[in-house]
Amino acid sequence: MDDLDHLRTYVRDVADFPSSGIVFRDVTPLLGDAAALQQCLTALAAISKTFNPTHILGIESRGFLFGVPVADRLGVGFVPARKPGKLPWPVHSESYGLEYGTDVLEVHVDAVKPQDRVLIVDDVLATGGTAGAACRLVERCGAQVAGIVVLVELGFLQGRSMVSPHRVSSLLTY
Amino acid sequence: MDDLDHLRTYVRDVADFPSSGIVFRDVTPLLGDAAALQQCLTALAAISKTFNPTHILGIESRGFLFGVPVADRLGVGFVPARKPGKLPWPVHSESYGLEYGTDVLEVHVDAVKPQDRVLIVDDVLATGGTAGAACRLVERCGAQVAGIVVLVELGFLQGRSMVSPHRVSSLLTY
Repeated sequence: MDDLDHLRTYVRDVADFPSSGIVFRDVTPLLGDAAALQQCLTALAAISKTFNPTHILGIESRGFLFGVPVADRLGVGFVPARKPGKLPWPVHSESYGLEYGTDVLEVHVDAVKPQDRVLIVDDVLATGGTAGAACRLVERCGAQVAGIVVLVELGFLQGRSMVSPHRVSSLLTY
Repeated sequence: MDDLDHLRTYVRDVADFPSSGIVFRDVTPLLGDAAALQQCLTALAAISKTFNPTHILGIESRGFLFGVPVADRLGVGFVPARKPGKLPWPVHSESYGLEYGTDVLEVHVDAVKPQDRVLIVDDVLATGGTAGAACRLVERCGAQVAGIVVLVELGFLQGRSMVSPHRVSSLLTY
């Protein structure tokens, strides 16, 4: 993981965002640098491939940034999990606790099917509330959760326990 | 464009969403189908390459879905334009009129630099309000707008006139 540690240079720490006491890990410098973005996506795709998914699920909004290029590199379909009221077709809904507040996540009821293996790809694993809701949505569709892959894991928040027993892989741990 | 017309099969029309009288073009079936997604991204990347961009700009949220894989395929950086209050660093802001309401779009002030050529990639060009705001944000950063590439163009809404004189290319016109 020494090579990947280089990517930390492109994750900007912003203190007290979105609220006091939170250190926000801003990945926009990584996205904006062509070489860093390629290195990040190559690593995310390589890890994701080991989960042998038939679909990638990405969580609105920042999960969309990494989920679709991983689906593209693996040659699988992509499923968006969205905020309430954004998806136009019938949905399954799951509520969850955030690091700062609560929210609801939705997927289309026909997004995946029972034989599908769905890998959740997100930018950050914090408390695991969002990823846990995404897992439940996959299961509500009758499909299997292949696991969870994130760019940044905030290890001190112990998000892995929230999504147990699903396997979690992260590129960078803070 | 006969080959691309096949992609229309994967764009689902949803009547009266998000409000009465609107026909929403739902691209989630296209995203979910591995072969359709590959065909769509291959076509978007080929068109985008003709604009010779140094960066792709994607508009939150659905623009993120197509912008990053295009940036990945072209080997360039990606810039997110986000809803107000989502970006943690100092921003430029532009307001715009939507097909249904008004909103504000922001980019980080250091997202792109004067020598950069920024291509805006989005899912849908409707009235052109969002794309126009994205163009102004690129110019506020001192960079050049390379053009606009969209998956779906709602031709009857004449969005091209809103982003004139920038060049617009779309895969599917309705």
